[in-house]
Amino acid sequence: MKIDVMQDVKAVNAAYAEANREKLKNIFTVNIISSPGAGKTTLLEKLVKKLADKVNIAVIEGDLATARDALRVQACGIPAIQMNTNGGCHLDAKMIANVLPGFDLAKLDLLIIENVGNLVCPADFDLGEDIKIVLLSVTEGGDKPIKYPIVFLKSSLAIINKIDLLPYCDVDMYALRKDISEINPKIRQMEISCREEKNIDEVAEWFLSQIMLKKQKSIL
Amino acid sequence: MKIDVMQDVKAVNAAYAEANREKLKNIFTVNIISSPGAGKTTLLEKLVKKLADKVNIAVIEGDLATARDALRVQACGIPAIQMNTNGGCHLDAKMIANVLPGFDLAKLDLLIIENVGNLVCPADFDLGEDIKIVLLSVTEGGDKPIKYPIVFLKSSLAIINKIDLLPYCDVDMYALRKDISEINPKIRQMEISCREEKNIDEVAEWFLSQIMLKKQKSIL
Repeated sequence: MKIDVMQDVKAVNAAYAEANREKLKNIFTVNIISSPGAGKTTLLEKLVKKLADKVNIAVIEGDLATARDALRVQACGIPAIQMNTNGGCHLDAKMIANVLPGFDLAKLDLLIIENVGNLVCPADFDLGEDIKIVLLSVTEGGDKPIKYPIVFLKSSLAIINKIDLLPYCDVDMYALRKDISEINPKIRQMEISCREEKNIDEVAEWFLSQIMLKKQKSIL
Repeated sequence: MKIDVMQDVKAVNAAYAEANREKLKNIFTVNIISSPGAGKTTLLEKLVKKLADKVNIAVIEGDLATARDALRVQACGIPAIQMNTNGGCHLDAKMIANVLPGFDLAKLDLLIIENVGNLVCPADFDLGEDIKIVLLSVTEGGDKPIKYPIVFLKSSLAIINKIDLLPYCDVDMYALRKDISEINPKIRQMEISCREEKNIDEVAEWFLSQIMLKKQKSIL
């Protein structure tokens, strides 16, 4: 009974995700997932500064409560819509479908969806994105990949943030990166510090290359 | 349909929680909730050292995968049982009911349940505990209480960890504590650093006082 309902929820979500993907076929769309406070919104602020004069960006912000994150992104001059889940632990594809009409999709190159801060549930819900990105901060400790493997398995890029705090954390970066690679041998890994603006250029270049690849794919 | 099923899930959980509470009526039982990597297991290691010669403790460790945390607690000389949710985002009361027979309950004074690292879903599931404790690390940023209010509303104690890293975080501790108090005026707040063993004594004393109160209550 419980399983039937879950299968139903998954099937409905998959249908909405496919419809979203069709609407977003010319727009590189990412779904960013992390623990609360790993730095998703701060990374967006830094990235938007690097990319805003090159491509047209929009952001969907997911949170249980408040419009804080959308306001932070809007302050960078980017259209951003806040979704409040009112206690819900993840975004689903129907929520995304509901807000897509709020953007001028024909003009967009990049749509960034910032999921609810949660390393578990969001990994299970396809929103219609091209790829998932998992963001991890070194202050969370080095054992997160092996303890929360699913999100690392489903993501194409793992960004390790707050490396400026490595001297104060007992994290073995070599072991951490090895664990991530063993869970998902195809995942790309980057180390950044939003606070010290370290390696943000590398992330921005990666985004530009993916936007380019998506455009080529959508023309073919 | 979906709502009926959720109500059913909640009713079943409530029944198991009440049965657990009856079995645990002489044992002070806490349910610790936090984001991944806020320091739950490290706090347990520090606390166990302070408390183990005074009271009998057992620990239930909840994780999606691995037995790492139970092994860390067992290394402190304390009985610990690892529960793996295999992708599940929270512990529920039935899972706790299933592992309680693994402990000699007649001999215990304190049972600590470390929930899955997740600031959202665990807040909704009563496990039969006396109180919930929310653990927050300053490296997660100061906006977590207003963005994840439910767990703060349902907890009796908020422990703010990693205060040794305050110089490297843009967190206004006064505003953070004020936000927590506004969500839940009755919540007790403590600031600690597990890394520097700062204020662990304060947490240990609080636990001893609560164990004492529970014992008095169970005699009456």
